[in-house]
Amino acid sequence: MQQNQNRLVTAGKAIRCKAAVSRNPGEPLVIEEIQVEPPKAWEVRIKILCTSLCHSDITFWKKSNGPFAIFPTIFGHEAVGVVESVGEHVEEVQEGDLVLPVFHPNCRECRDCKSQKGNGCSVFGNRLNPDMPRDATSRFKGMNGEVLHHFLSVSSFSEYTVVDVAHVVKISSKIAVDKACLLSCGVSTGIGAAWKVADIEEGSTVAIFGLGTVGLAVAEGARLRGASKIIGVDLNPEKFEIGKKFGVTDFINPSTCGEKNVSEVIKEITDGGADYCFECIGLASVMEDAFNSNRQGWGKTVILGVEMHGTPLALNTYFLLRGRSVTGSFFGGFKPKSDVPLLAEKYLHKELNLDGFISHEVSFKDINKAFELLLEGKSLRCIIWMD
Amino acid sequence: MQQNQNRLVTAGKAIRCKAAVSRNPGEPLVIEEIQVEPPKAWEVRIKILCTSLCHSDITFWKKSNGPFAIFPTIFGHEAVGVVESVGEHVEEVQEGDLVLPVFHPNCRECRDCKSQKGNGCSVFGNRLNPDMPRDATSRFKGMNGEVLHHFLSVSSFSEYTVVDVAHVVKISSKIAVDKACLLSCGVSTGIGAAWKVADIEEGSTVAIFGLGTVGLAVAEGARLRGASKIIGVDLNPEKFEIGKKFGVTDFINPSTCGEKNVSEVIKEITDGGADYCFECIGLASVMEDAFNSNRQGWGKTVILGVEMHGTPLALNTYFLLRGRSVTGSFFGGFKPKSDVPLLAEKYLHKELNLDGFISHEVSFKDINKAFELLLEGKSLRCIIWMD
Repeated sequence: MQQNQNRLVTAGKAIRCKAAVSRNPGEPLVIEEIQVEPPKAWEVRIKILCTSLCHSDITFWKKSNGPFAIFPTIFGHEAVGVVESVGEHVEEVQEGDLVLPVFHPNCRECRDCKSQKGNGCSVFGNRLNPDMPRDATSRFKGMNGEVLHHFLSVSSFSEYTVVDVAHVVKISSKIAVDKACLLSCGVSTGIGAAWKVADIEEGSTVAIFGLGTVGLAVAEGARLRGASKIIGVDLNPEKFEIGKKFGVTDFINPSTCGEKNVSEVIKEITDGGADYCFECIGLASVMEDAFNSNRQGWGKTVILGVEMHGTPLALNTYFLLRGRSVTGSFFGGFKPKSDVPLLAEKYLHKELNLDGFISHEVSFKDINKAFELLLEGKSLRCIIWMD
Repeated sequence: MQQNQNRLVTAGKAIRCKAAVSRNPGEPLVIEEIQVEPPKAWEVRIKILCTSLCHSDITFWKKSNGPFAIFPTIFGHEAVGVVESVGEHVEEVQEGDLVLPVFHPNCRECRDCKSQKGNGCSVFGNRLNPDMPRDATSRFKGMNGEVLHHFLSVSSFSEYTVVDVAHVVKISSKIAVDKACLLSCGVSTGIGAAWKVADIEEGSTVAIFGLGTVGLAVAEGARLRGASKIIGVDLNPEKFEIGKKFGVTDFINPSTCGEKNVSEVIKEITDGGADYCFECIGLASVMEDAFNSNRQGWGKTVILGVEMHGTPLALNTYFLLRGRSVTGSFFGGFKPKSDVPLLAEKYLHKELNLDGFISHEVSFKDINKAFELLLEGKSLRCIIWMD
């Protein structure tokens, strides 16, 4: 009844609410009152329950204007919320559904979405514009009428957001919302990389470069597949203890390797090189380390990090000819609408560790604290509660 | 009876025979009388019936001394012959067997050889020395006693050669020897790349950079898998007609593309990029073209060419993240001892076009003519008959 009343009050109208607006690259976000327009056709307006901070937010928050971030903008792309209202033609979800907004589109109609092979979307996957995918306009305005831009078609650092239905995943209302939030980006990316992209077999050796949330989710995925060795590589020595909870068996701090480089140490531990190497940082030099740590014959390097400086990855082609491969994926190769609900089910059946990824919680007004924690390397996921 | 008599005459003794010796990089080979020592333990002495010239011979013949070619040397690594005698412990083949000497080792005992995943050999696959794999010495001597080196552990430009049993594949005596010869390197490499490494599905689109024997064998493999488009890319316009016999449906001459580059043309023909791209030349710049011609979502680039200048392959990592992969292999991912005999069977069942690869034939004394033909781009495979 309460919900129906709310609906009567807000559906079809602009909503005034609070958002954390990023006005200039690298500067603290400012909580402001904004207007969120009603959803157009194929769009969904979502009341965000909680959101969390992912490294990609930081990467683009630091940068100047570019195709992926146009200031002023509303960052945030890992979240969970409840559908407030839907636009014309939206039948997949309805008011009151628990949903994840997801940066990775999944129209379910195109050749890519219908294929079993990849997880791309040929209709919505090629946009560089960060605003609404169908008309490239924003649904956010400042109280003075200025346009505030979307980010990755999600923009969850706002009490309400509007997202295209291709970017919405409905999930079971049984799951605790803070755990659900994790599945909206980082954790799904890591687990998918282990399961879908690498397809790790029992007994495999795995090396993970960067033990942030994505890297630890790779470890969790590798652990569940029965990997025999899961080697974590990180400059922060505290990550070994954290990593053990996700199955990390060995740890290398590149700054304390002595005369050996990381690849040499990994080759010693694995008797020739790891079966699977994952780069979860976004530096071409680390991608090369990962490639050089792979076993010949069938070693596979999976790139998950978004290269921060646009540096190309330089590969020794002779090493490729010795039976190595390099691959990459967004969202861990998972198709959001079909695969993410299965992860939620696995969590509900206690087959997946999600709780361990939540290291901090803050309320929305303290969102800049979440930035500080991640920048200092102190947090995995900091849940930002909207209420 | 004849064979037994021969055996009595030659087994256990050095054989005097003719070989085409390469004394200096880039200079014509010289037919000389040499001595071929008897096989030691685990070795097989083979009477070569015919051999053919592969681009890798040319690549190393042009170079100065290096780990893969030490002058004076006996080139040649694509051949067929009959076992003349075997050393101690050799049980897999015996005198009179029709065999292929193969540069790619397959000991059948190591973890790699026993695995279903790759085609490496961890025992013999890591050597750089071109001579006998177990003791790094040569079985060839000039008549003045000077050491003549092996090449890729095969050295088939000699009437007799000694090869480790790990490099020997026994095949059906029913197959015509000139067709069998082709399976010793180039044709197996191309077909394996299509079947084992790429695993092309029916209806796929394929682009092949370089329509030499390896590239055409990729086309043949793609044709047999039911690829819908097989695009050949070559600077020689005559290769389109030749390619059609192996299933090539479209042809691009990079020198006549006008303002468009090859990748743009391939993306037009395939509506976004080819499912599979193969580099069969050995130039990093062409490998990059191949990668850029791949479809996002699941595009796979397979590197077959040995990079001629040691230039690394530079990849745009964002393109990788869009669901592309790059992989490489020697010998098309085939395990020589188990996979090559199956190819011979396919030929005998008329399921594989081998005849089309033989463009020329010369007698051994005219071996330099085979070099000229390949250097001028006029031949695919030139069979060099020892008798």
